[in-house]
Amino acid sequence: MKRTATAVWNGSGKDGKGNLTTQSTTLNKAQYSYKTRFEEGVGTNPEELLAAAHAGCYTMALAFGLQGAGFTPDELETTAIVTFESTATPPTITKSHLKSRQRSSASARRSSWSWRRAPNRAVR
Amino acid sequence: MKRTATAVWNGSGKDGKGNLTTQSTTLNKAQYSYKTRFEEGVGTNPEELLAAAHAGCYTMALAFGLQGAGFTPDELETTAIVTFESTATPPTITKSHLKSRQRSSASARRSSWSWRRAPNRAVR
Repeated sequence: MKRTATAVWNGSGKDGKGNLTTQSTTLNKAQYSYKTRFEEGVGTNPEELLAAAHAGCYTMALAFGLQGAGFTPDELETTAIVTFESTATPPTITKSHLKSRQRSSASARRSSWSWRRAPNRAVR
Repeated sequence: MKRTATAVWNGSGKDGKGNLTTQSTTLNKAQYSYKTRFEEGVGTNPEELLAAAHAGCYTMALAFGLQGAGFTPDELETTAIVTFESTATPPTITKSHLKSRQRSSASARRSSWSWRRAPNRAVR
């Protein structure tokens, strides 16, 4: 399966601006720039999108994992905190720290789900 | 510098649903689910966000690089194509392929910019 996104950039690195569009158009020409990335301008930046991808992937996997252990995940919340050493040469992501909390209830029966059983199997 | 995003998930892995919010609120409770990730449901998924982060990072860096080589980047466009082996155990990203094209003009003088000189220096 292929998932795509496109960046368009106009102008210089420091003074130019860009926009990001994902396949689903959830991001639809979302603005980004040097300021939104290295300073505190209004708009997105690659690092917060990486944080969203990490938090999103982990949280869905946690739901499957809890379910496999006999719980119904009522509400899971995960924040990813990406550390971006913006003054390093080159600028470098050094960490993506996840903080997660969950409220789950014991389910009627233990599911046999695990990654080994593949997530595209129906799980109840 | 820290960049954050939060995922909230309610319900089981397969039938539940989640949403993603980034620090800038460019993503603001953007829906995602098993269907939007492993099938073709409407909404986002971690893989296309990773594609956006990759395309976005590369394209901004390319603008700086072109500038350093004596060009003014008029328009750069990069698509990241992330290959997600959704039936693997566990599901795995195996590739992020970038396709990029650019239209640039020769600038008046060569900039001395390079990553070694750090991007938080003014570049003209």
